[in-house]
Amino acid sequence: MWLPRQPKCISDLILCIITPPFSQATANSDSAEAWSESARQLPNVAQVMEGMPLSMGSLRTLPWYVAGSQVLGVACVVITGVWMGHYRGGYAWNGSAQEFNVHPLCMVLGLVFLYGDAVLVYRVFRNETKRSVKILHALLHMMALIISIVGLVAVFDFHSAAKISHMYSLHSWCGMLTFVLFFLQWLLGLGFFLFPWASAHLRSWYLPLHVFFGLLLLAMSVGSCLLGITEKLLFSIMETYSRFSGEGVLANILGLLLVCFGVVVGYVVTREDFRRPPNPEEEALSVHFKTLSEGEIPSSP
Amino acid sequence: MWLPRQPKCISDLILCIITPPFSQATANSDSAEAWSESARQLPNVAQVMEGMPLSMGSLRTLPWYVAGSQVLGVACVVITGVWMGHYRGGYAWNGSAQEFNVHPLCMVLGLVFLYGDAVLVYRVFRNETKRSVKILHALLHMMALIISIVGLVAVFDFHSAAKISHMYSLHSWCGMLTFVLFFLQWLLGLGFFLFPWASAHLRSWYLPLHVFFGLLLLAMSVGSCLLGITEKLLFSIMETYSRFSGEGVLANILGLLLVCFGVVVGYVVTREDFRRPPNPEEEALSVHFKTLSEGEIPSSP
Repeated sequence: MWLPRQPKCISDLILCIITPPFSQATANSDSAEAWSESARQLPNVAQVMEGMPLSMGSLRTLPWYVAGSQVLGVACVVITGVWMGHYRGGYAWNGSAQEFNVHPLCMVLGLVFLYGDAVLVYRVFRNETKRSVKILHALLHMMALIISIVGLVAVFDFHSAAKISHMYSLHSWCGMLTFVLFFLQWLLGLGFFLFPWASAHLRSWYLPLHVFFGLLLLAMSVGSCLLGITEKLLFSIMETYSRFSGEGVLANILGLLLVCFGVVVGYVVTREDFRRPPNPEEEALSVHFKTLSEGEIPSSP
Repeated sequence: MWLPRQPKCISDLILCIITPPFSQATANSDSAEAWSESARQLPNVAQVMEGMPLSMGSLRTLPWYVAGSQVLGVACVVITGVWMGHYRGGYAWNGSAQEFNVHPLCMVLGLVFLYGDAVLVYRVFRNETKRSVKILHALLHMMALIISIVGLVAVFDFHSAAKISHMYSLHSWCGMLTFVLFFLQWLLGLGFFLFPWASAHLRSWYLPLHVFFGLLLLAMSVGSCLLGITEKLLFSIMETYSRFSGEGVLANILGLLLVCFGVVVGYVVTREDFRRPPNPEEEALSVHFKTLSEGEIPSSP
């Protein structure tokens, strides 16, 4: 039976992704005896498995889903880059239509791909300390925020230079709402979970809201991108779109891939048996002094 | 303390919605003694509360969320009706643009409002038998399916009469994908949960997938509607949309209300302490003979 690889550090994610599970699955026999033998030879893995709520069968599929999400995410960024670079005239930063082209690329990279990966870290880095994963989660979200701000500046610059009204379309309303809620969620996440400003009671109250709004904002990001794709196509190729022009079909495929990325990330995060196993020892040794001083088990995502 | 009203039959839902909790909350004191006294006077409620995982505080908010979802859902249907009826020339069934207008109304009514209400029934009818709620869930989804089919026929008729290509836009791809997956999910739901064709093992395997795809399809329905709104506005009022015309603002507000409806339904369904309490007696007396013959506890949504 294949032994699931548990990424031990951040660089291990790349190994985890570029070495999909089929290589191990075919290299090892699938019998219970082989699993027992492997577990004896690899006490580290055996220790990990002990007390875990996962069946081997379900854990075995996790790297596939993670790899799939990365393929989809990279494909979305590449297709957006090709669409804007090849069909829409490339990139610039001078108020022209080429500056607008920075907007879709930044939003897909920041608010979808990096945002989704920030959500996934709790399922990928199962054996890192909770605090390390929290910091990585916050850093990836910070990168997503910065790249999104660049994307927003690009479109506002373009609108100002071309004397087009700001914030009139449903795409802009949904996109801005998503960005503002994401920024608030990031600030609240820092305050509640990373810095010791909130009590254990407040943390346990906010945690399910943080998780719910985290997934909601991923869905809203993907939805806003799809609205942007539709807007861009109707502004640029309204005549040929209905004749299945190459650009239109490519952009439609991009839309479906964005939906698929969101679905895979959402599935991995909500699937009960993919949850990070609880580690009471780590919780007891947590550095959240405020929580410890109140004598309660800390709650964190 | 206010005693939560448990809808006992379908008509009770209307009472539950039109009598929001503030009337009871203000009529009763909020002390623990008052709650104990009320519980003694109302053994029915006391029996319900016994063994329930809900805190009174959280259960008290459930009718508010349900009422909010209904207000939002009705507002979406009414605004769509006004948009198509007042701004877009009303309704007909003759291949004209007025036949197209049937499409948005049917999709918002069927694939969003009725679909969302079908999802909500497990949280609203907490004391009905599981089988009754399943039947209501399936019937509401069937109504949603039929109304969606009328809406799809309307747009295909209009495209054919106007010699416009079918299925070229991202809206049509996402919308059709949503409809097909919804139809498959409905068939699988019937086969797995309502009719005794599936074993308990298969049911418990499919249940989390049914729940995940159920919420995903609600999100995809709302997203498809937003894409349709953007398409319709850019086809109809591209010149005045950027000058914040009344029609454009109304349609944008409709888009945000659709998102809000999806968010409230999603929140009610995913919130842990709003879950329907388990009823072992009901499960043991379940009429799913196939499950009973296998000696296992049935799994159902």
